[in-house]
Amino acid sequence: MTLRTVSETRSHGGIQGVYSHPSIETGTDMTFAVFVPDHEPGEKMPVLWYLSGLTCTHANVMEKGEYRAACAEHGIIFIAPDTSPRGDGVPDTSDEYDFGKGAGFYVDAVQQPWSKHYRMRSYIERELPDLITASFPADMQRQSITGHSMGGHGALTIGLRGSDRFTSISAFSPIVAPGKVPWGAKALARYLGEDRAAWREYDAVALIEDGARHPHMLVDQGTADNFLEEQLQTHQLITACKDAGMPAEIRMQDGYDHSYFFISTFMADHVAWHAKHLKSEI
Amino acid sequence: MTLRTVSETRSHGGIQGVYSHPSIETGTDMTFAVFVPDHEPGEKMPVLWYLSGLTCTHANVMEKGEYRAACAEHGIIFIAPDTSPRGDGVPDTSDEYDFGKGAGFYVDAVQQPWSKHYRMRSYIERELPDLITASFPADMQRQSITGHSMGGHGALTIGLRGSDRFTSISAFSPIVAPGKVPWGAKALARYLGEDRAAWREYDAVALIEDGARHPHMLVDQGTADNFLEEQLQTHQLITACKDAGMPAEIRMQDGYDHSYFFISTFMADHVAWHAKHLKSEI
Repeated sequence: MTLRTVSETRSHGGIQGVYSHPSIETGTDMTFAVFVPDHEPGEKMPVLWYLSGLTCTHANVMEKGEYRAACAEHGIIFIAPDTSPRGDGVPDTSDEYDFGKGAGFYVDAVQQPWSKHYRMRSYIERELPDLITASFPADMQRQSITGHSMGGHGALTIGLRGSDRFTSISAFSPIVAPGKVPWGAKALARYLGEDRAAWREYDAVALIEDGARHPHMLVDQGTADNFLEEQLQTHQLITACKDAGMPAEIRMQDGYDHSYFFISTFMADHVAWHAKHLKSEI
Repeated sequence: MTLRTVSETRSHGGIQGVYSHPSIETGTDMTFAVFVPDHEPGEKMPVLWYLSGLTCTHANVMEKGEYRAACAEHGIIFIAPDTSPRGDGVPDTSDEYDFGKGAGFYVDAVQQPWSKHYRMRSYIERELPDLITASFPADMQRQSITGHSMGGHGALTIGLRGSDRFTSISAFSPIVAPGKVPWGAKALARYLGEDRAAWREYDAVALIEDGARHPHMLVDQGTADNFLEEQLQTHQLITACKDAGMPAEIRMQDGYDHSYFFISTFMADHVAWHAKHLKSEI
């Protein structure tokens, strides 16, 4: 595996890096960001994955997410992948922000022409973790995951499917039931096809209905989020967890919207919450 | 005075606003950002001004500065003005990032064609404070100032000239002696003319040499800053303060560069330091 260092910058008592590599899964160069706190030689640190939302790259949370102080304090490596394959050879739509490039929805597409490059599930679940293991001082026995909006959907679904891999899972304003809302139904239909049974492993509410469980789940959702009613529908997750007897902590945050002004407000709290669980695993 | 609300967004237990208004000083519409922490009805809070660097607007620090958590904790209003006049009628240079739009250097220009619009000194020193007083719950008896790079130059010079107005002054990687470095000499010559005596009130080191003093000054400067040697020359400020017997705290921060990855690292520390001084004034 060839890892190219795009930049490494000192910040908050650690190194904020940006790296790129040729991905086997997506067939493209992929770029991601990693923050590594200062540590002792040979020390390995737990990992927090952050999956970004529609239109984002690795850079949005790196610039606006305000995670570094908390990750340095708790000794946690923070990994921010891109949201889709990129490049001239990757099929895209010309005028849709919510499908194609920047909108991979963390699925392995099976429909043409998307199936060749849009393999973000396998990229996040297998290829990038192997690269992280090989290249960073990461204790891969201690991983947690979070994300925002489409990336909150990614964090919840990857986390629920990988409950053995992730110590704790959280999300900021996630799409909780993509199969039942416009953003998700549009993307899943085109990436996966019209058979809705195939969508359920990419739908947090459906996964819980079908038996997936995680003991440590935290969700923050702003009440002034313009997407809450139509696209996010947090109440569906609350109902699914209640019906399943799954003790999730789902918090409605008064007056907050869908932006990084919201995410950054609660980021340190999420990092501390994950740290508490990651460190109780030692 | 007409103040237009561009946006108001809940963040970190307060409101991050962006506002615009027709400026008498610059003859243009000016945009600025203000963060107001939650407060009791009728309560007025101290103010921290932040002046931005070359190429920046109000938005850079608003997105990347990581000041809101600290300002909310300490109950401080944070104001981020633009760095120059903007608009079609404002003279500019087509290919210089360090002169013209985005590079007002916090002077009142006296040379044509710059003198009509480039009046950032009077804008920051008089017009915008009056607007803040009229429109926000600001206790203008308790003001401090900081800034980055060109804005660090602005904070130090406005702060040294206004030692009665500002309780404390700080800077991140400031241009400390613009009259003696390429960025500054170019800008001051074109805004003010070739008579270098007129430059001295816009030069922190020259102001101190000429007798200006402030009892509470803090500067952070990264040692890996690519601009340190040629443009910033922190050692000149260290020497001037030492020669003047002025007890400034000037810290060289190992491995940090010139970016917001550096600024954000030490922002909470600066806010807390200003808060300590602002609150001892009550």
